[in-house]
Amino acid sequence: MIAEKMIPFVQNNSAIRTMFEEGNRLKKQYGADKVYDFSLGNPSVPAPDCVREAIVDLANNEDPVILHGYMNNAGFEDVRETIAQSLNRRFGTDFSAKNLIMTVGAASGLNVILKTVLNPGEEVIVFAPYFLEYGAYVKNYDGKLVEISPDTETFQPDLEELERKITANTRAVIVNSPHNPTGVIYSEDTIKALAAILEKKQKEYGSVIYLISDEPYRELAYDGAEVPYLTKYYKNTVVGYSYSKSLSLPGERIGYLVIPDDLEDSETVIAAAGIANRILGSVNAPSLMQKVIARCVDAEVDVAAYDKNRLALYNGLTACGFQCIKPQGAFYLFVKSPVADEKEFCEAGKKYNILMVPGSSFACPGYVRLAYCVSYETIINSLPEFKKLAAEFSLTEES
Amino acid sequence: MIAEKMIPFVQNNSAIRTMFEEGNRLKKQYGADKVYDFSLGNPSVPAPDCVREAIVDLANNEDPVILHGYMNNAGFEDVRETIAQSLNRRFGTDFSAKNLIMTVGAASGLNVILKTVLNPGEEVIVFAPYFLEYGAYVKNYDGKLVEISPDTETFQPDLEELERKITANTRAVIVNSPHNPTGVIYSEDTIKALAAILEKKQKEYGSVIYLISDEPYRELAYDGAEVPYLTKYYKNTVVGYSYSKSLSLPGERIGYLVIPDDLEDSETVIAAAGIANRILGSVNAPSLMQKVIARCVDAEVDVAAYDKNRLALYNGLTACGFQCIKPQGAFYLFVKSPVADEKEFCEAGKKYNILMVPGSSFACPGYVRLAYCVSYETIINSLPEFKKLAAEFSLTEES
Repeated sequence: MIAEKMIPFVQNNSAIRTMFEEGNRLKKQYGADKVYDFSLGNPSVPAPDCVREAIVDLANNEDPVILHGYMNNAGFEDVRETIAQSLNRRFGTDFSAKNLIMTVGAASGLNVILKTVLNPGEEVIVFAPYFLEYGAYVKNYDGKLVEISPDTETFQPDLEELERKITANTRAVIVNSPHNPTGVIYSEDTIKALAAILEKKQKEYGSVIYLISDEPYRELAYDGAEVPYLTKYYKNTVVGYSYSKSLSLPGERIGYLVIPDDLEDSETVIAAAGIANRILGSVNAPSLMQKVIARCVDAEVDVAAYDKNRLALYNGLTACGFQCIKPQGAFYLFVKSPVADEKEFCEAGKKYNILMVPGSSFACPGYVRLAYCVSYETIINSLPEFKKLAAEFSLTEES
Repeated sequence: MIAEKMIPFVQNNSAIRTMFEEGNRLKKQYGADKVYDFSLGNPSVPAPDCVREAIVDLANNEDPVILHGYMNNAGFEDVRETIAQSLNRRFGTDFSAKNLIMTVGAASGLNVILKTVLNPGEEVIVFAPYFLEYGAYVKNYDGKLVEISPDTETFQPDLEELERKITANTRAVIVNSPHNPTGVIYSEDTIKALAAILEKKQKEYGSVIYLISDEPYRELAYDGAEVPYLTKYYKNTVVGYSYSKSLSLPGERIGYLVIPDDLEDSETVIAAAGIANRILGSVNAPSLMQKVIARCVDAEVDVAAYDKNRLALYNGLTACGFQCIKPQGAFYLFVKSPVADEKEFCEAGKKYNILMVPGSSFACPGYVRLAYCVSYETIINSLPEFKKLAAEFSLTEES
């Protein structure tokens, strides 16, 4: 009774639901504070105070007909201009309101740009490990997802394989830095090398290859790490941003696309993306939240809280003998499974009430993802359990 | 540089933009209060007070991590249960939380259900005149839109033509009552006859035909008119609702789908729709607004204000000699153009600073749509101008 394309999603979804329900069962049985749930990327740091203040002030003092009303499908002009100016100040870019389209979070923004540029059968390249939902987004427009194998040493993109896999049919490359699920940040050198390959291939094929930068974690960078702003390195870049993590507003579905003037045929792409935003059903990003964002444009997330979690979990796990790359950003740890089948490892974790996501959910089996956007207490309390888990797999403690 | 499917949309969109820009030009030239802009369906009645109160109270008193956080993709369970109970009280239905999926407005809800059930090449039937965007939604999933000709006497659906046009390939029928752009309400007899045809055709073809009820105007009914709740008449009904008009929140993008237990293979359709909501990029309906809706579930729109507008405009126009059906709901008047080419009539209207939308934008040329969700003053001040416009077309005043 459902569309054929939806059938595999429904089948796969029941596996996710089973995991979710098992987590709930454990929490009921042992108490929520005795279950170490590292499975969800839901920010644990509350939205900064300015969000509450802006909501209350706007509700009390703005004309509701405007505050909750329709605006240009791309979003309120003043909101877009405010964000553009903030980006220009921070990154030395040169955007204005017209380069921004407010979207229902980054997921919707990615759908909007893919609908805008992708023809059926065209290829979109992603670097494993990657957020598996990218595959669903590309299939929504009958595109073909092309995976680049993971470099499990550095988790930086394998640019040699990228160069080999770009064809005349490549329409876009999606990058995500700071990165889910590994926490790595793509360095400026990596970005420059990536841009050079794309430039070369565009010339070779006489094509346009869009670089789509999915960056909900931009603000979550540690130890002073810089996150290069990609439009400055490659003209045909589209940025998809979300306030889900930076302002802890994931449920509000608020973000934007940046489509720079430098992008080939920019005006047409902007017009088409505005239409795609409308006809995919979003119509526009939620109006009150747009205005809230504009008031909080320079608010900062409490990165220190996540950083404290990062160090505690990273140090705790490596001390037990687990191997993982030290994350530079986002709020995930991508840990090597001590056995080839990481699902077996995830199962073993449940005995200690530890919930982890298998790496095969990110096209990178043999690893597991831990989301450390939890309370510091959860992390500290989980460490003795991780120690037992390590012992079960005969890992050796660091001396 | 854009997808081929997007090209016709971009071309068509510039026509809409031209109209919009011309409206702005007139307002700049003559002053906004001297331009009679009947082109937009943006509610003029502000959101009821309970919306503001709920926003402020929730922002001040709820845990922001929950208030702005992720929830089940279908929406907060308590919100869905509250709405289900409200529907049950009002319409004698028997829904619970699981039958509701909160969506980013009705437009997103329609996309979600079409993605859920529609295979490429399958047919979706609509009754002209209709909201032209339905065509875009159906094309998003490579479906085929099938139009039923307008019955310009009553603007009720032509059920004979419907019966002839249903094929083995018909997957869904979209209805919209109270109706944009005519304001008619489909009577219970009409709905019963429609349901009987669908039942018969389902048997004939051994198929499932979904009746999709797009009902953002449900609450806007005048003179005590009843709007039948369609799930009670036909099992395979899916309801798409929006708070855009009933609570004057069009910019907030908040609505829901109802998928009843009676619907064929209901559980699978519900599961698939939840996934479609996620992978189309909405992920979930905006979280704060979900909670606001639950608090305002029994709030009522100020229908009296629209009713006053309706009578003033309807009586004023018919007195000048214009012909139109008296709307029973929504906030539109669908007026017969005094010349066959209604675009010529719209152009003539601009000389009197009257902005109207040509009926060809609703697949019904020869008519124009006037949205009377404007101030009462605008309507009163426009009437002398309509009189001049009528004179230009030699219409005879009612004696």
